[in-house]
Amino acid sequence: MLNSLDAAFVETLESQLPKGTIQPADNRYLEEPRGRYFGQPGFVAKPKSTKEVSIIVAACNQARVGVVPYGGGTGLVGGQVCPDGPVPLILSLERMNAIRNVHAEENVIIAEAGAILQNVQEAAEEKGLLFPLSLASEGSCGIGGNLATNAGGLNVLRYGNTRDLCLGLEAVLPDGQIWNGLTRLRKDNTGYDLRNLLIGSEGSLGVITAAALKLFPRPQNYGTALFTVPSPDAALELLNLSRRVAGNDVSAFELMHRVGLEFLRETLPEVRQPFEDLPEWLVLLDLGVIGSQDCSELLLHIFEDGMERGVVLDGLVAQNATQREQFWAVRERIPQANKRIGSIVSNDVSLPLSEIANFIDEGRRKLEALGNIRLNCFGHLGDGNLHFNVFPAKGKSRDEYADLRQEIQTVVNELVASKGGSFSAEHGVGRLKAETLEIYGDAAKLSAMRAIKASLDPNGIMNPGAVLR
Amino acid sequence: MLNSLDAAFVETLESQLPKGTIQPADNRYLEEPRGRYFGQPGFVAKPKSTKEVSIIVAACNQARVGVVPYGGGTGLVGGQVCPDGPVPLILSLERMNAIRNVHAEENVIIAEAGAILQNVQEAAEEKGLLFPLSLASEGSCGIGGNLATNAGGLNVLRYGNTRDLCLGLEAVLPDGQIWNGLTRLRKDNTGYDLRNLLIGSEGSLGVITAAALKLFPRPQNYGTALFTVPSPDAALELLNLSRRVAGNDVSAFELMHRVGLEFLRETLPEVRQPFEDLPEWLVLLDLGVIGSQDCSELLLHIFEDGMERGVVLDGLVAQNATQREQFWAVRERIPQANKRIGSIVSNDVSLPLSEIANFIDEGRRKLEALGNIRLNCFGHLGDGNLHFNVFPAKGKSRDEYADLRQEIQTVVNELVASKGGSFSAEHGVGRLKAETLEIYGDAAKLSAMRAIKASLDPNGIMNPGAVLR
Repeated sequence: MLNSLDAAFVETLESQLPKGTIQPADNRYLEEPRGRYFGQPGFVAKPKSTKEVSIIVAACNQARVGVVPYGGGTGLVGGQVCPDGPVPLILSLERMNAIRNVHAEENVIIAEAGAILQNVQEAAEEKGLLFPLSLASEGSCGIGGNLATNAGGLNVLRYGNTRDLCLGLEAVLPDGQIWNGLTRLRKDNTGYDLRNLLIGSEGSLGVITAAALKLFPRPQNYGTALFTVPSPDAALELLNLSRRVAGNDVSAFELMHRVGLEFLRETLPEVRQPFEDLPEWLVLLDLGVIGSQDCSELLLHIFEDGMERGVVLDGLVAQNATQREQFWAVRERIPQANKRIGSIVSNDVSLPLSEIANFIDEGRRKLEALGNIRLNCFGHLGDGNLHFNVFPAKGKSRDEYADLRQEIQTVVNELVASKGGSFSAEHGVGRLKAETLEIYGDAAKLSAMRAIKASLDPNGIMNPGAVLR
Repeated sequence: MLNSLDAAFVETLESQLPKGTIQPADNRYLEEPRGRYFGQPGFVAKPKSTKEVSIIVAACNQARVGVVPYGGGTGLVGGQVCPDGPVPLILSLERMNAIRNVHAEENVIIAEAGAILQNVQEAAEEKGLLFPLSLASEGSCGIGGNLATNAGGLNVLRYGNTRDLCLGLEAVLPDGQIWNGLTRLRKDNTGYDLRNLLIGSEGSLGVITAAALKLFPRPQNYGTALFTVPSPDAALELLNLSRRVAGNDVSAFELMHRVGLEFLRETLPEVRQPFEDLPEWLVLLDLGVIGSQDCSELLLHIFEDGMERGVVLDGLVAQNATQREQFWAVRERIPQANKRIGSIVSNDVSLPLSEIANFIDEGRRKLEALGNIRLNCFGHLGDGNLHFNVFPAKGKSRDEYADLRQEIQTVVNELVASKGGSFSAEHGVGRLKAETLEIYGDAAKLSAMRAIKASLDPNGIMNPGAVLR
């Protein structure tokens, strides 16, 4: 059993740390973006070094006080706030935000956990290189949180998830030991993969304090096209065709449905939509070419092949940077339109690519059988990642669907599971989906996870209640 | 403590399995390629299904009998044979060799652990796709072993290690539970990364029975060049330059030293060497282009840029497939030449890319101070992976250096550690390097590894003595 943080513990811990390291936690450490959880008033520790993190975690472990690691606070599943149970210490990495080094000739950057993602991107750019992780909250999320949650974002198709961008970690384990795993090696087969175990464990197995991350050459030419396609299956065929033409230069492949475009027109009419008649299905294809190839030529080639095979109905290639931005705005502003409409249930699911079309059809049928709803389905098709969001019928409010919410969620979860999908593609488990994990997680995996958690964190101090309850 | 396999246990287990599943282990299960270890006579189980693997492992766990998973038997660190201690059961996956499915439209293949790597490659090729893992033993190694050891090989620069090629696993955990983790998902953030924990754990945490693996479009044009370069540092600059020109189409970047070329000339004079005057440093650059770009043009561009920057001294671009093979033969036959010369110590190390040049210089100085030796240093420069092999002076035999062997090994290990490198880049730990891991492994990582091992395999049945002693 954990103990609540108390004045005596705070006082003892303060005496071991520089003045000002521990402070009362103001509201920003207790809130989370979706407003579902509110943390308990308490204290936040703001260490400036790995050694200080180690002192803090070791003290908490000894006193059996919970530790909630805190990055930018942008997580969407409540992993960053502990709303009940014994009061934990919040451990913010915000002061450990240095870019320790850019090894440009190795394509490696070493960043501390509290470094804001955008600062990591900019440090790479200063050396003419690319750190490809890119997501909506990049101006405020910390790279440590990106790693702890294995963040996804816009460039996964080409560069992988955050996990794939990490070469090495420095971390403090639940007993306070510092793991110096900050390697810049591309190959290292010397024991268990502790790096990937910590990545995606959402602070429940230790605190990431720094990381060695991969950098890449920056593409020299960019190209963007919008294609209307007859179906999600056609979109998948178009994706494969694009990769045969442009290989790894395909950076993004986003699918949108007419309902999303209607939401845009309804709530954000200033967003310019290139197709006057809203298409049933729309694909945004983005290329970033390294070398001298002409993006427009590649996109034209894809368009012609796609027309010939009947997987493209119409297409537009952005002629300049302004048009590229306009095309991207269609995709990027759909979440904002969704917010204005107000979803009953929103989902961040992934599916095997060839199951997506069936999933959408079946899901639509099942949900429409439950009530009069609108479905907006869009997402990173190239990653099999679908935002499958359910909205009230036109003129109705989400509150009128309160009774249906749980049933809708269950229908979606069951269908995802039956197709071999995941109920959380990029957002993680946190506190919001800990029960869902118990229901849909593989039994052997869950038992292994519990064994691992108990072995590395026998007192259960790390982010109590997150991932595993 | 483990118990030795005995007749009573074998009899009981046989009664639960189809006839013929358990057989006396003939020599091929007891030998390993380097001849350093010889397994104890005993029995081999050859299950045909995951369920049978589960029965076997559960029975061994209950009786506390060790289990040594066995794939193609090609590992180079003794991970596949248990030379002493209580006699274990050998668990060969050879009968579980099915390609269960090729999801061509998803770029995914599902293969059982016993499938020979070459058969996986061919199943992908039949669908016009590429499974890029490629290594010397591909005709006999099993994909399960490749995963268990996180094999590297020729295409790591472009496609990553085996770990990077795996989407999902099916495995039997040490208590016999079957983990159904055979997902085809590109994104799935629902709990700890058990997949990567098992990959590279060398059979010490469970038995991989099947895997979902990534496939890729096949390159449409190939191009190969040999460049002479003034130094390893220049080679590194050439690598970065190549990637700016050809991006992800750079498939291989191999560094060779004059000593290796001399060994070839001495022991395999039939290998055609394109440069009459053997260069001090030689780079082989391989491109595999997706799309319509001309490889020769790209290679010429790289050559010209390299000359201008002074990182290339001379170069040859293969004009046809025969020449490509000739160029590759220079690189691929060096290990055979090495064998004929007979090394005192051979190493499979990796280093941060920018440390390679210093490592080679310092290593050479330190080794030459120990005695009259020849150093052949070559490898996958793009991965920071160096084979740093020490040979007798001309006219001397390796036996004359027996007294020096340990000292040479220690000098290399110490230098690797001091440069932030790894003593095992691709071969793993097995039994050969378990002690080295204890010496050079990070203390916190080792303690976490031991905790994880104890939690998942409390009786220590899985591959006893491998990785952790």
